Amino acid sequence: MEELSFAVDCMGGDYAPDEIVKGCVQAVRDFRWKIYLTGDEERISEILSFLGELDNPLLSVIHAPETVGMNEPPSSVLKKKDSSLYVAGKLVRRGDAQGLISAGNTGAVLAVGKFVVGSEEEVERPAIAVALPNPTGKTVLIDVGTNVDSKPKHLVQFAVIGHTYAQEILGIENPRVGLLSIGEEEGKGNELVKETYPLLKQTQLNFLGNAEGTDIYAGTFDVIVCDGFVGNIILKTSESLGLAVVSMIKEEVKKSLLARIGAVFMMPALNRFRKKADFTEYGGIPLLGAKKPVIITHGKANAKAIRNAIKVAGEFLKKDFNNKLVQNIKELIPAEAKI
Amino acid sequence: MEELSFAVDCMGGDYAPDEIVKGCVQAVRDFRWKIYLTGDEERISEILSFLGELDNPLLSVIHAPETVGMNEPPSSVLKKKDSSLYVAGKLVRRGDAQGLISAGNTGAVLAVGKFVVGSEEEVERPAIAVALPNPTGKTVLIDVGTNVDSKPKHLVQFAVIGHTYAQEILGIENPRVGLLSIGEEEGKGNELVKETYPLLKQTQLNFLGNAEGTDIYAGTFDVIVCDGFVGNIILKTSESLGLAVVSMIKEEVKKSLLARIGAVFMMPALNRFRKKADFTEYGGIPLLGAKKPVIITHGKANAKAIRNAIKVAGEFLKKDFNNKLVQNIKELIPAEAKI
Repeated sequence: MEELSFAVDCMGGDYAPDEIVKGCVQAVRDFRWKIYLTGDEERISEILSFLGELDNPLLSVIHAPETVGMNEPPSSVLKKKDSSLYVAGKLVRRGDAQGLISAGNTGAVLAVGKFVVGSEEEVERPAIAVALPNPTGKTVLIDVGTNVDSKPKHLVQFAVIGHTYAQEILGIENPRVGLLSIGEEEGKGNELVKETYPLLKQTQLNFLGNAEGTDIYAGTFDVIVCDGFVGNIILKTSESLGLAVVSMIKEEVKKSLLARIGAVFMMPALNRFRKKADFTEYGGIPLLGAKKPVIITHGKANAKAIRNAIKVAGEFLKKDFNNKLVQNIKELIPAEAKI
Repeated sequence: MEELSFAVDCMGGDYAPDEIVKGCVQAVRDFRWKIYLTGDEERISEILSFLGELDNPLLSVIHAPETVGMNEPPSSVLKKKDSSLYVAGKLVRRGDAQGLISAGNTGAVLAVGKFVVGSEEEVERPAIAVALPNPTGKTVLIDVGTNVDSKPKHLVQFAVIGHTYAQEILGIENPRVGLLSIGEEEGKGNELVKETYPLLKQTQLNFLGNAEGTDIYAGTFDVIVCDGFVGNIILKTSESLGLAVVSMIKEEVKKSLLARIGAVFMMPALNRFRKKADFTEYGGIPLLGAKKPVIITHGKANAKAIRNAIKVAGEFLKKDFNNKLVQNIKELIPAEAKI
């Protein structure tokens, strides 16, 4: 598959540019795809040279003198046209690269994904989906990006985007779709949910009705749809709870020698669990509905995570995700529920 | 303090009426308060008789032939005027009892709290607060009830209710108040948050700005304010994540003998942690802003949990919570931000 090519923002993330560049090199060695490395040409070339890959024709360094800070607002990012992120976005827009990967500021990557790479035909608002782990598999939560104050018809599109992701990428045949609310019965919820429910019923999706917070990690649904405000808070709350639980358990374990010994014995099992629970292990989270794959990795992404994110971008292309998505939007949503 | 009296719904919850009645007996023995036990007179009397407390003048059985199912919608509950829950609510409304305790259907208790017990003067929407654990203390999340589609001025009241709860009941001197959003800076969030932020700035609260999902269990705020839709989902997601983590860790631990041994050694520490994390251990969650204390316990509440919930209701009265709340609403909210 040498025909595939990706633009990787080498200056975003906690371990940029070293780990990002190393990840690109690993991807080229493993997949033989073309990679454009955007950022400080001198530093990137130094790392490539150190890795003995400076002359590899599959690795092209594209100089971008500016960088995007982790706390910079998305609006300012769109004005920084010489940043490593924006330049990567432009390479995709021009068709030189077929996907964008960045470990930088999530809001900034989202903005470049939406406004530089652009939205796919039929897609009103690209959305971020995460595949959250549960004891029996995974549940796609969509949108966890920043689509706030969504309208009912946006949620219907998110449902179809989530369905397509679950089906094409996660391999779930007939994804069970739920609408996140505060009670199971139709009519429970806020205005947005009450208006969205009847629209979802009219689609060709396998819509099971309202899901509740208790369903997020229970494996009772394959896709759970929500407004980006709620989804973002769910994701960050989960992260916060995870950290607090680890810290509080450590505190309790410290109080007893026996428990300390027990913890040592349990460590490999706990690490296996942590790996399973860490959705960034799988290569970042995709912005779905952009014209080309846009993959946002964790800010702490190392070389392996970057290599995996590039691999995931390749899968989206190989599986022809966008065409299937457009087809699903056209076929599964009846005219009344269309935007 | 024999002058205090409470109405306890003896037919709500998974272990009703046995554990509920036992909890009432424990409370009477420990605090010498008057308890009205509402529900099936024959069954309650049998249990009291078995416990040797049938003739205790502090325990009055009030017959209520109907019960409220765990999945009954709140609207139907308000029509069931002979249910143990409704009868308990009426006892409070009439002034016979000074607080209501129930382990029943949360939505039903909320409805009876709001519409039978009624709202306190100045309080537009009573709200549910939970004190969530974090490594350094507790964070009050409000509202986690079912106040959906709240207006900015409702969130301002929730902030003052949460502040009063943190100060008077949890003993936090100058509670740090945050507004739940998807970014720290003013201007980040949905329409509700953007309109609420400037109003909160005008109050006399110790308002630190937006909180994020990552702050819920981090101890960075003492009070976090949100709409009831979001709060309810956060609470249920946390519960769901907790269950999934335990189940997935068990699965991993099973795979290794060493890990199994380790788990046994760690058990006491893990149990101490679980106790700390289980906010129902502290005697249920209060509906704040009702005319009198209304305490909702976990459906699985046992005798001890019921006894603790009665104790908590007593604390609200002894600490004169409602008067302080009304005073705070009057003093901390400027005219422009008042409902």
